[in-house]
Amino acid sequence: MTWDDPIPPTIEWRDGAVRMIDQRLLPGRLAFVDARTVDELCAAIRTLAVRGAPALGVAGAMGMALAQVTGMDPVDAAARILATRPTAVNLAWGVTRGRDAADAVAEAEGLAADDVARNRRLGAFGAALVPEGGRVLTHCNAGALACAGYGTALGVIRAAAEAGRRPSVWVDETRPVLQGARLTAWELDRLGIPATLVADVMAGSLMAAGEVDCVVVGADRIAANGDVANKIGTYALAVLAHHHGIPFYVAAPVATVDPSCPTGADIPIERRSGEEVSSIAGHRIAPAGVAVENRAFDVTPAGLVTAIVTEDGVLRPTYSFGTGTTS
Amino acid sequence: MTWDDPIPPTIEWRDGAVRMIDQRLLPGRLAFVDARTVDELCAAIRTLAVRGAPALGVAGAMGMALAQVTGMDPVDAAARILATRPTAVNLAWGVTRGRDAADAVAEAEGLAADDVARNRRLGAFGAALVPEGGRVLTHCNAGALACAGYGTALGVIRAAAEAGRRPSVWVDETRPVLQGARLTAWELDRLGIPATLVADVMAGSLMAAGEVDCVVVGADRIAANGDVANKIGTYALAVLAHHHGIPFYVAAPVATVDPSCPTGADIPIERRSGEEVSSIAGHRIAPAGVAVENRAFDVTPAGLVTAIVTEDGVLRPTYSFGTGTTS
Repeated sequence: MTWDDPIPPTIEWRDGAVRMIDQRLLPGRLAFVDARTVDELCAAIRTLAVRGAPALGVAGAMGMALAQVTGMDPVDAAARILATRPTAVNLAWGVTRGRDAADAVAEAEGLAADDVARNRRLGAFGAALVPEGGRVLTHCNAGALACAGYGTALGVIRAAAEAGRRPSVWVDETRPVLQGARLTAWELDRLGIPATLVADVMAGSLMAAGEVDCVVVGADRIAANGDVANKIGTYALAVLAHHHGIPFYVAAPVATVDPSCPTGADIPIERRSGEEVSSIAGHRIAPAGVAVENRAFDVTPAGLVTAIVTEDGVLRPTYSFGTGTTS
Repeated sequence: MTWDDPIPPTIEWRDGAVRMIDQRLLPGRLAFVDARTVDELCAAIRTLAVRGAPALGVAGAMGMALAQVTGMDPVDAAARILATRPTAVNLAWGVTRGRDAADAVAEAEGLAADDVARNRRLGAFGAALVPEGGRVLTHCNAGALACAGYGTALGVIRAAAEAGRRPSVWVDETRPVLQGARLTAWELDRLGIPATLVADVMAGSLMAAGEVDCVVVGADRIAANGDVANKIGTYALAVLAHHHGIPFYVAAPVATVDPSCPTGADIPIERRSGEEVSSIAGHRIAPAGVAVENRAFDVTPAGLVTAIVTEDGVLRPTYSFGTGTTS
């Protein structure tokens, strides 16, 4: 596919390897990392060189393409890839798509192109929800870097900007891994969309002062009842938005819905190393030996979600995924 | 006064200087900084070598003692000290106490001893609010390091531990300056009270999972109607606690109440440098040139506060400060 975008492809098949923007190095440096084996790809996923639910879907398929090209046992390859991260359902979805394809490379490349097209459709639906001059608060990075390209939550903001609605963005820094400060701020700068970085703790204050018109976030997995797993801190934003009567939108492709999870309680929540909290860029910020609890995701009950924006349209409660009806 | 405590005095008069624990160096190193002039003290306040509302009250008085000892014009000294930080009312209170004293050194030392005694009384009242084995969430540092000693919010937790109630503590890291990770975790480790560090964004998840029994925080200024200014992020915790039916306690000496502020809207909120958010320990975590909004405090409406714990007892709504009645 041709690529006409200020942000290069997050992940693509190139010369027999999976080439990814190395997100560990942003915003300091835009560089790429190539995975030539399934194990190299798994390391890239585990260390967050590539992350974000839709991007992980493509990574899963490209991992199976690597298995096919390198002659690795597909059952072994699938198991290794699935063991990297538990919360995003897209990873398993991508692995299945790649595994079942006669030509896994073509399948994975098709998924990547399809992801961008879906995000553009999703963005167009979501743009209509952003008021003229709207001040949008977002959390983590649900942008081009979380997908093959364009973005989901940032896709909505981008589409609103392209439609002339002049949105501006409050960017939650998103501790502990700082995807907001490092990635979302970088994307919005490249796109020329006005953005202001804030510590996560400031969101409540901004809402109380009437400085937030809507919240738009992505999703890592959506249960059949509409409960949404997303980056830790999303749930608190949903409670705050509810308290202040501010619309809270989730932007995610339909593939994010997992009909096999009846409710959010069934979604596995990844626990990551305490080092992500107790150290920043190798600098220790807490006493040695302190106990740390580091859950990477939380679950927002469907009742706190104003609408879910998908490539097929805007879904409002009551959701009824998996039964063929939405209302 | 004699000092029998695992944590050295936060601030004291020593050999004609104001000696302070240098909180910029914690938790890596316990070291002290001496201020021999008002300007040196102002620099220590501005750069957060000393911080915390009750400690700033003592610092204000000790600053006036420095002015008296060095022969500096007291009006000039008071103006310089008051210009350092706008939100904590205790600073102005301490300056006034020091300025009006014939022997400002003795006055300041008396205030420091008095602060510790008040915090111990406050702690004893608050301890009764902590359930047996209670899991207490706290934000920022309202400990010995925020006071002359013992602490307000941490004083409550400490007193609960001394009373055999075996509390454990969720320590919010408290971005952007990380007073929780750096100072509160350090204090609790020295005191042998079980503590677990979390990113601020995890508080909502912990509450939803039933893992928080109460929230206890300090205050930088309390308006006459009971609205509470405290570290940014406090307001979001109060909203979350309210949403989950969890008691939300503010621990603060009576001097924190400012009867000249009718409501929280009248409390000045300090804006600090964006560098506090965009860099950590000299390491840049956001793109160069990104806009940052960095409000150091927020206001929690009285209606979200279950009770205010003071050295004179536990005050519950409706507050009516400044009119001589509490109910």
